[in-house]
Amino acid sequence: MWTEKENALHATLKFKDFVEAFGFMSSVAIMAEKQNHHPEWSNVWNTVHIKLTTHDAGNIVTDKDRKLQESINDIYSKYQLA
Amino acid sequence: MWTEKENALHATLKFKDFVEAFGFMSSVAIMAEKQNHHPEWSNVWNTVHIKLTTHDAGNIVTDKDRKLQESINDIYSKYQLA
Amino acid sequence: MWTEKENALHATLKFKDFVEAFGFMSSVAIMAEKQNHHPEWSNVWNTVHIKLTTHDAGNIVTDKDRKLQESINDIYSKYQLA
Amino acid sequence: MWTEKENALHATLKFKDFVEAFGFMSSVAIMAEKQNHHPEWSNVWNTVHIKLTTHDAGNIVTDKDRKLQESINDIYSKYQLA
Repeated sequence: MWTEKENALHATLKFKDFVEAFGFMSSVAIMAEKQNHHPEWSNVWNTVHIKLTTHDAGNIVTDKDRKLQESINDIYSKYQLA
Repeated sequence: MWTEKENALHATLKFKDFVEAFGFMSSVAIMAEKQNHHPEWSNVWNTVHIKLTTHDAGNIVTDKDRKLQESINDIYSKYQLA
Repeated sequence: MWTEKENALHATLKFKDFVEAFGFMSSVAIMAEKQNHHPEWSNVWNTVHIKLTTHDAGNIVTDKDRKLQESINDIYSKYQLA
Repeated sequence: MWTEKENALHATLKFKDFVEAFGFMSSVAIMAEKQNHHPEWSNVWNTVHIKLTTHDAGNIVTDKDRKLQESINDIYSKYQLA
């Protein structure tokens, strides 16, 4: 689900529709702010692309990215079961 | 999951935590506005209580409530699988 | 805007419509989780009722409530300008 | 605020912080689904980029885009007042 390239973690996640995709994004938004670490992300209807990298560390993948990645995986696991 | 009493449909839904509960609420909010029919709902941490009734019809349960109820069940089905 | 009664802070906030009310709720949800302190709140269309109290401290108003209250006021200030 | 290029409407919107940006996105998400017309959008912390075009019409700007653009302007007007 995730690939690491150019010093960033990337994932493209699919959902049933926009309603589901945005419910997922709302949960991720909460976790991102809680961890003080925000994704670069985009959405088109049922698809969410997420890029994680740590700007403050010179745009490399750090523990902050790994931690948010884990939270995202946890939230996404619900939707994968469908 | 739902009970009908005093001319309204009631459900009390449980989630793993607040993050999950609010993701669910975000999806429901979108469907409610799309259907031009809004719930009376409350939230405390991992619990969401929903009450559906049709004010314009004199506070009775109508097809509008049944339709939103179906959408809510559909969204909630993801979380029940956990 | 806020009243203190029965060891809790209460506010009833009005918005233009449901779309605006839920945008506000999404911002508040993020701050609540960030502060590890969650409101008891309910919503009907353009109205949001919020109750803040600290369960862990025996249901009294504490600094946790005051801090979340401040964040809510800050978020709500945008909507009051309308 | 908006520019039209390559048959699409583009806007880059700034907010105070992520909490505000995501509150805005939640309101826009609701309107998008209500209008059955979804943006291509991305977010990094306090910045939201939105692209509107109508895929079904061969990727040109149509009334659907203009209508969603108006709703976005209406929602964003609250945040500009800050």
